[in-house]
Amino acid sequence: MFASEVYQERRSRLKKSMSNGLVLFFGNQESPMSYPDTVYPFVQDANFLYFWGLDSPGFAALIDLDSGAETIFGKNPTVEQILWGGPQPDLADAQAVCGAEKALDRDKLDGLVKQAMDQGRKVHFLPQYRGENRIWLQELTGISPGQSGQKASTELIRAIVALREIKTADEVAELEKAVDLTAQMVFQTMRDIKPGYTEKEAAARAVCTAQLESGTSFPIILTTQGYYMHIRGHENVMRAGDVVIQDCGAESQLHYAGDITRTLPVSGRFSEAQKALYNIVLKAQLAAIEAMAPGVEFRKVHKLAALVTVKGLQELGIMHGDAEEAVALGAHALFWPAGLGHMIGLGVHDMEELGEDYVGYTGTIKRSIQFGTDRLRMAKPLKSGMVMTVEPGLYFVPGLIKLWSGERRLSQFINYDMVDKYKDLAGYRIEDDVLVTDTGYRVLGKPIPKTAAQVEELCHES
Amino acid sequence: MFASEVYQERRSRLKKSMSNGLVLFFGNQESPMSYPDTVYPFVQDANFLYFWGLDSPGFAALIDLDSGAETIFGKNPTVEQILWGGPQPDLADAQAVCGAEKALDRDKLDGLVKQAMDQGRKVHFLPQYRGENRIWLQELTGISPGQSGQKASTELIRAIVALREIKTADEVAELEKAVDLTAQMVFQTMRDIKPGYTEKEAAARAVCTAQLESGTSFPIILTTQGYYMHIRGHENVMRAGDVVIQDCGAESQLHYAGDITRTLPVSGRFSEAQKALYNIVLKAQLAAIEAMAPGVEFRKVHKLAALVTVKGLQELGIMHGDAEEAVALGAHALFWPAGLGHMIGLGVHDMEELGEDYVGYTGTIKRSIQFGTDRLRMAKPLKSGMVMTVEPGLYFVPGLIKLWSGERRLSQFINYDMVDKYKDLAGYRIEDDVLVTDTGYRVLGKPIPKTAAQVEELCHES
Repeated sequence: MFASEVYQERRSRLKKSMSNGLVLFFGNQESPMSYPDTVYPFVQDANFLYFWGLDSPGFAALIDLDSGAETIFGKNPTVEQILWGGPQPDLADAQAVCGAEKALDRDKLDGLVKQAMDQGRKVHFLPQYRGENRIWLQELTGISPGQSGQKASTELIRAIVALREIKTADEVAELEKAVDLTAQMVFQTMRDIKPGYTEKEAAARAVCTAQLESGTSFPIILTTQGYYMHIRGHENVMRAGDVVIQDCGAESQLHYAGDITRTLPVSGRFSEAQKALYNIVLKAQLAAIEAMAPGVEFRKVHKLAALVTVKGLQELGIMHGDAEEAVALGAHALFWPAGLGHMIGLGVHDMEELGEDYVGYTGTIKRSIQFGTDRLRMAKPLKSGMVMTVEPGLYFVPGLIKLWSGERRLSQFINYDMVDKYKDLAGYRIEDDVLVTDTGYRVLGKPIPKTAAQVEELCHES
Repeated sequence: MFASEVYQERRSRLKKSMSNGLVLFFGNQESPMSYPDTVYPFVQDANFLYFWGLDSPGFAALIDLDSGAETIFGKNPTVEQILWGGPQPDLADAQAVCGAEKALDRDKLDGLVKQAMDQGRKVHFLPQYRGENRIWLQELTGISPGQSGQKASTELIRAIVALREIKTADEVAELEKAVDLTAQMVFQTMRDIKPGYTEKEAAARAVCTAQLESGTSFPIILTTQGYYMHIRGHENVMRAGDVVIQDCGAESQLHYAGDITRTLPVSGRFSEAQKALYNIVLKAQLAAIEAMAPGVEFRKVHKLAALVTVKGLQELGIMHGDAEEAVALGAHALFWPAGLGHMIGLGVHDMEELGEDYVGYTGTIKRSIQFGTDRLRMAKPLKSGMVMTVEPGLYFVPGLIKLWSGERRLSQFINYDMVDKYKDLAGYRIEDDVLVTDTGYRVLGKPIPKTAAQVEELCHES
């Protein structure tokens, strides 16, 4: 963890930015896999980690915005737990980590919350995404699990987003460690893949590379069916001529997340058509990164990437017509029905547990309803200290092509005969993690090869 | 999965063994890791898997004990889900897997359960260990999350234990696959370990070995501090002279669990004292396995292992006095404060999500309150078709030795001066998975070396 002063400072800034009442934080509890004693690897709530630094289950915390008091709630280990589990941190240790002025047994939390509610004080809390904590909230406040989202404090959410969206130098250093380890996951796959290799084995070995250090930040996507953007399985055997999308992240010891995508040729060489598509994505990504600077709206960066993509597809004869108009009407979304990127930090979709629109949109910058652009997770102006993924792509989604081509939708921009020629060429995505600096941008981590030639050189030729 | 007839047959037997009302089954839902869209790898509830065979999230099922009707509830994939996730099984596919006569949209479940309750019919359900399903139960029945355990149907629990505790030949075949893959995890570590190697790396590589095939059945224990039986971290660096306890399990494609423990010398050779302790555990394990047969109470097998252990410790001068009396009074529990084993099947602690005592005890065979033996998870008579872990051990638990030696507890059996000499020699456990046959027992899987000489031969000498 960071020094306790870091967490004190974060809480101090939170207090200054909020009005009054109590702020109630839930740390995550253990998450049972198949019965109460067999649990998933523990993952702490990112907000709890950010403000309190405690990385073990079963904590809660209160900030009294009126008195300024900060209290951490937990349990001292029992004699039995120490006998069987070895020396374990107690409440005093937890207090030392977070620097709260008070540490109390968790059983005391209930009375304090109920007392505040009886006094008519506002109790701020965040949306709860885990069943266990929705139940805990219900026990403390009477708010039913189904209502925990809508009764969450928007004041608290907005205050947290304003803090967490700007990364300090220490946080950026953690993110770079995560990116560098993520690169190792990519290099592992580059070395391993060849025709006949299974997605399952490739995924297991890439994940193992991260586990040897500190772990992964999200379940790896590794697929020859990259046109299915939400595909989670690893059921295919790689064939000569396939391209593989690997979208993966390692995390740092402090749980900052990496998120990198590379598109790799199974045989070690892209075909000419694959390379042409690949180079469009690369060009779009480089142009987008180049455009990033404080004050620039990310939705404009997204549009720029779309424009570069359309122009590239026009060169291949897949699209035609006025490129700007094509983007304005969303014609690119047949091939890229996704957003350019999202914030990254303690979460891989940083802060989206608070609600996606609170993170990426503002009172004046509203989410588009246009197909494709409606999936843009972040649209608002960039600020120095934000870290974004930049991940344009090209996807030949079978169901989508069938739907649009059946309607000849936007055929003033799309050459459906050419789409037919390319439609078996799967999916392409290139993603890096980019810090917005005072003057522009910096791609985090040691450079991970991304030109087609570099990628081919690192992939096993077979 | 098995053929749908297997699941039909299981449900048919369940129906025959129960009285009346509805039986409500919840499949597991996705388990959010850090926000709703980033989820842990899906693990299905074992009872749902056993009776319905469906291995994806969000299903439920009803059996009407009076009419015999069986209905599966789920959701057809949306157009959007198919576009982004690729072809996905729908309700008709789910119905084909489980062989239920009806498949309905999940939204219909609520009305049917409420109707039955309004009619005063009994609704049987199981204890719920996941927050999401406790909330689901509350929404359907009004039963609060805190009460879901005590309001669960003991009739249903007992009926399920009676079925699941006897493994069919097909289930045994799955368990053997799991054991054989678990052996690969052990062999991996045997090849890898040496002084200076980290527990973390060893654990990651052993787990990767299982992930390459089908996955693990529980989080691996791999530690040089084997005297802490509940230790979960992998924070130590292995030193020359250390022994490592590796307690791990792979699972088969159908999620049957392996659970194997070996104790390995980091330098490739046990010291004489380590070997003496190791051989006591081995002798206890072999004697226990040899004693297994239908009709034999497992608590008696446990006692036999304790007796062999005491006699071995007497030979080393660590214990003295009458061995049978020492076991009767629980003196062995200073060195082995645990039970001999547990059932294994679709769960690694098979069926313990239903309540440990329902699995291992009966109306007449009650749990002991004696320290050590109170942790025996299974005591009742063995039956042909049961599969048990057999895992005696020797542990020098620092806090426990301090406690007992301070009181000179049971010093008529324990030579505390000799305990002092051995107390830094960590922990030893040897575990195999054993099927009870009509005539005796069969250790599952290809033999995994376990004599000290065999283990030394396979471990890297350094």
